[in-house]
Amino acid sequence: MRLEDGRQRAVIEGVYPEIDCGQFPIKRTTGEKVVVEADIFTDGHDALSALLLYRREDAPEWCETPMTFLVNDRWRAEFTVGEIGRYCYTVMAWVDHFKTWAGDLAKRIQAGQDVTVELEIGARMVDEASQRASGADAAALKTVAETLHHGGDTAIAAALSPELSDLMFRYADRSCATTYGKELAVVVDRERARFSAWYELFPRSTAKDAGRHGTFRDAEERLPYVAAMGFDVLYLPPIHPIGVTKRKGRNNTLVAGPGDPGSPWAIGNKAGGHKAVNPELGTLEDFRRFVQRANEYGLEVALDIAFQTSPDHPYVEKHPEWFRWRPDNTVQYAENPPKKYEDIYPFNFESEKWRELWEELKSVFTFWIEQGVKIFRVDNPHTKPFAFWEWCISEIKQQYPEVIFLSEAFTRPKVMYRLAKLGFTQSYTYFTWRNTKWELQEYLTELTQTQVREFFRPNFWPNTPDILPEALQIGGRPAFMSRLVLAATLAANYGIYGPAFELCVNEPTMRGKEEYLYSEKYEIKHWDVDRPDSLSRFIGQVNQIRRENPALQSNLRLRFHGVDNDYLICYSKTTEDLSNVILVVVNLDPHYTQSGWVNLALDQLGVDHEHPFQIHDLLTGERYLWNGSRNYVELNPHAIPAHIFRVRRHLRTEQDFEYYM
Amino acid sequence: MRLEDGRQRAVIEGVYPEIDCGQFPIKRTTGEKVVVEADIFTDGHDALSALLLYRREDAPEWCETPMTFLVNDRWRAEFTVGEIGRYCYTVMAWVDHFKTWAGDLAKRIQAGQDVTVELEIGARMVDEASQRASGADAAALKTVAETLHHGGDTAIAAALSPELSDLMFRYADRSCATTYGKELAVVVDRERARFSAWYELFPRSTAKDAGRHGTFRDAEERLPYVAAMGFDVLYLPPIHPIGVTKRKGRNNTLVAGPGDPGSPWAIGNKAGGHKAVNPELGTLEDFRRFVQRANEYGLEVALDIAFQTSPDHPYVEKHPEWFRWRPDNTVQYAENPPKKYEDIYPFNFESEKWRELWEELKSVFTFWIEQGVKIFRVDNPHTKPFAFWEWCISEIKQQYPEVIFLSEAFTRPKVMYRLAKLGFTQSYTYFTWRNTKWELQEYLTELTQTQVREFFRPNFWPNTPDILPEALQIGGRPAFMSRLVLAATLAANYGIYGPAFELCVNEPTMRGKEEYLYSEKYEIKHWDVDRPDSLSRFIGQVNQIRRENPALQSNLRLRFHGVDNDYLICYSKTTEDLSNVILVVVNLDPHYTQSGWVNLALDQLGVDHEHPFQIHDLLTGERYLWNGSRNYVELNPHAIPAHIFRVRRHLRTEQDFEYYM
Repeated sequence: MRLEDGRQRAVIEGVYPEIDCGQFPIKRTTGEKVVVEADIFTDGHDALSALLLYRREDAPEWCETPMTFLVNDRWRAEFTVGEIGRYCYTVMAWVDHFKTWAGDLAKRIQAGQDVTVELEIGARMVDEASQRASGADAAALKTVAETLHHGGDTAIAAALSPELSDLMFRYADRSCATTYGKELAVVVDRERARFSAWYELFPRSTAKDAGRHGTFRDAEERLPYVAAMGFDVLYLPPIHPIGVTKRKGRNNTLVAGPGDPGSPWAIGNKAGGHKAVNPELGTLEDFRRFVQRANEYGLEVALDIAFQTSPDHPYVEKHPEWFRWRPDNTVQYAENPPKKYEDIYPFNFESEKWRELWEELKSVFTFWIEQGVKIFRVDNPHTKPFAFWEWCISEIKQQYPEVIFLSEAFTRPKVMYRLAKLGFTQSYTYFTWRNTKWELQEYLTELTQTQVREFFRPNFWPNTPDILPEALQIGGRPAFMSRLVLAATLAANYGIYGPAFELCVNEPTMRGKEEYLYSEKYEIKHWDVDRPDSLSRFIGQVNQIRRENPALQSNLRLRFHGVDNDYLICYSKTTEDLSNVILVVVNLDPHYTQSGWVNLALDQLGVDHEHPFQIHDLLTGERYLWNGSRNYVELNPHAIPAHIFRVRRHLRTEQDFEYYM
Repeated sequence: MRLEDGRQRAVIEGVYPEIDCGQFPIKRTTGEKVVVEADIFTDGHDALSALLLYRREDAPEWCETPMTFLVNDRWRAEFTVGEIGRYCYTVMAWVDHFKTWAGDLAKRIQAGQDVTVELEIGARMVDEASQRASGADAAALKTVAETLHHGGDTAIAAALSPELSDLMFRYADRSCATTYGKELAVVVDRERARFSAWYELFPRSTAKDAGRHGTFRDAEERLPYVAAMGFDVLYLPPIHPIGVTKRKGRNNTLVAGPGDPGSPWAIGNKAGGHKAVNPELGTLEDFRRFVQRANEYGLEVALDIAFQTSPDHPYVEKHPEWFRWRPDNTVQYAENPPKKYEDIYPFNFESEKWRELWEELKSVFTFWIEQGVKIFRVDNPHTKPFAFWEWCISEIKQQYPEVIFLSEAFTRPKVMYRLAKLGFTQSYTYFTWRNTKWELQEYLTELTQTQVREFFRPNFWPNTPDILPEALQIGGRPAFMSRLVLAATLAANYGIYGPAFELCVNEPTMRGKEEYLYSEKYEIKHWDVDRPDSLSRFIGQVNQIRRENPALQSNLRLRFHGVDNDYLICYSKTTEDLSNVILVVVNLDPHYTQSGWVNLALDQLGVDHEHPFQIHDLLTGERYLWNGSRNYVELNPHAIPAHIFRVRRHLRTEQDFEYYM
């Protein structure tokens, strides 16, 4: 304890948000608020004043905003982050003798006590403040000090005036103020970090004619289709040259046939590695053109970055020190004993040359950033050191704060959260396996109502090339529809792997497995995207609803409402001002019509208990009049297994006619 | 982020206990355990090893104990604190390649894979470890390395032997180990900090003859009485000279009569201040003798330290700079406008001379420590700066680690907790106003089942000279009995203000107030402690039960059990090994007999669901046979409103006879 601090009587603790003692930043997007709370108190009965201090990390001066007392020693203030980059904030508080004095003075006067001496005490405080002020403020304070000095009713009026209170706050004596020991950080991302709809697509499967290896030129033809569905991120699996040695065949067989294209995640061959384009897809020039075209359709291209190599990657020869060598002079391939993945070499992050390895991996990102890519989906980040990611992401975001990193870590919860804390912008989640009402409510509550929401931005995927969940296998088309609505309305960020999704592909390699039969990971597909039973129109509708309703563009105000049927889940999302209120009901049973009574928390929806309100199903266009909190719903999964209602609170009545006035 | 750390792949977070990011120590008493948990994980699938490191704060070297993996990345280990003073602890973890290798080897062998190369990899690891070892261990490792090098079944057996595993853990490569960033502190107190029974007594009210001012010599006569009740701390209100100016009269009137002795908390007159003894009580020599005599009766004297002065305190003249002066050249007295307390001057901790003030106040403690006092009840610590207490207590405990500070702060929860965190050994609580079952369960759960238990040691007081709670006013003798049992069995530390308590004094100044009528604070009392209706024998019995049952000497294993009657509360306390199990049932209704069925969590009591068990009421001596979790209880408040059962699990049956064998 520093004896210097002996007169700093204010105590600040319990600051929120603060992640792991301030070790990690919270996350926001431009224009969002940071609401800061703290426990602030002092000894005795003196009044306190407190400020929230904040600034862009590189700004020389703090901005200040007064904190407001709530209850039980809790104070609050907020600020808005305007630009992408990093902000920081902290809290300052001091014992405010003027405030104490003014409050006491009012009580003394009310009790009819003589306040002559008190006014003189006040006069001295005001006089001192005038010396901290300058210009007109100093003069004004000087005048008040004179008035107080003279006493009487004029003095009392001046003493208790809001003008004096304002001035005295502005020129408060902060010499014994306490500043919270830590500066807490905010990473501010662009809006897409918070609100995005991803579509994953293998460009090699976009050729018009079946069997041919698709190219970026072919993929360009698919852009209007993806754009029409309303997506805004087009995510491509790795586009690099694919290894030949130990290449996997169709259905993940150990030996590839002559025409098998291999898994895009077995990166690198003689044509190059992580900074090269698979020649079968085209040239780097073609890729840049593709990115450009996609942009024209409102689609931002996201690349998959998988830090591992095939045995044929140029790194193996050029940087043998980045791999683990076995006593028999072979490179250690990926393993999960007794399983072997001989087509994949992991990097050895314990290499003596780890610094060079880190720099090289970072340069992979910057290489693609220079080609126009600003979004990366990072493959299995949890199998590379946390320290590497913390360094790499922070280095890149310092130079390119607009870059978005999606963490594809399907692993244990603390590991997933750690990756988000250390810098990943968005994260894959357990949504893929959360099916029942209880599971969904439990998980979403954790993600949106606890501290997790400050650093972990969920991105919900009902399927991926690796995961065809049992719910989709069993539930078929109704399950595809309900899982889409859940993903798209529970989470502001979501994505699907298509066209397998909209075409409701649901055959696994075998029952009990979640792998796709004839997985696109190992072969070229020819998708008939125009099939009449495709969900593409439905998906387009859902994405349009998301775009038109800001309530669905954030997870902050998600609330669950009761339904007396466990197959029906009901939740709302609203804007902060309740100008946009969305209420969703989903039938989780893919087989049967389910009905029940919802029990709405009307206050959360801004709906008056006394008056009817209109709900407008944005999927069907139908409108219903509801009244009070209990209302009937019924959903047939074979038609549309969900309602996405816009709640319209103001109903026109006869009182709206001017004749009525 | 320091690039130096790039190969430290283990991550340590979520360490428990850790108070406010390690800003404050946790508390233990000698012989108690510190169980430490942490989330520890790394990237990928490698095995980890982790150590709990701990030491006396002044010890040069860490002691180490291996941590055990629990579940969900959580690890645990514990250590025992042996001596009073300060300890510290932290956590270390590393990626354990040998452990990974050995685990994988077993899987490979089971899958029938060739492990020739693996054994060579292992041989190299063992060889490296041998270079970190010395003596016999080095030789042993060298031998195993050879064996592994030669391969075959012998090698496999050696590779998977527990001996090798032990040695490899002992000589693990910790060059890339991660150490948790903080060293966390433990303040270790003597046992009385955890387990104590306080009796508060005004020595001036101990004269044999009514009206006379009692002295320490008189108070000596009272010692056998207090000791017979089984208390171990005898706490005296301030014993210093009492101010004359503005002295308060009987019943807190503004003007004292000629014989009024004044409030002991208006400290200081011409005879001296905080380091003097009120001459009416005797001399400093008498006081030292009193402390000595008390010790002979097993009673430790605790002094009340109230940092405030009467207008007549020598400090006022000698250190005018320690007070706040008003423009009319008077000292600012204590106020809570419009209320004035003109007999009390607070110190001005914002004085320019605050350092000198701090030093002087600290010297008050050391003065009394030198007279043999090792326990202080600190009056209103929340009206003096937190920074002062943190400094003062830590300075004193550095020199006298055996000293105990009890915080008498009846104020808002965060303030009370902060005082405990910064150093107070024990704390007054809200128990005084927690009467219903729900209130008691809620509060005790917060105190004993949350992080609060690591730093806040509750001391339960059913009454104090300042507080005659309404429950006692209304409930009379049955309420005094039930509140005593609650205080003494819910909290390992408790106290009463007597003889007002055992004599069931319950008349307030007026209904709706909690002040005693004719409060002992303002007058000399003559208590008839031998009155036949005194609770002194009952109290003695309860204190004896506390002494004989270690379960009641800690709050760690308090558990509530259901009762189907809200007037009955039921809870248990046990030792960790369940060798001592106490079950308490209290009737909270002071008027009527209440009965109901308890629903015991038998597992918590170590009781078998299948066999009957005996409960032995330690208050009445009665024994009952209970069976299963649901059992009947009935308590008449006009007899004894509580059961304190010792649960005896082993019942003798015919099978205990040797003939039976």
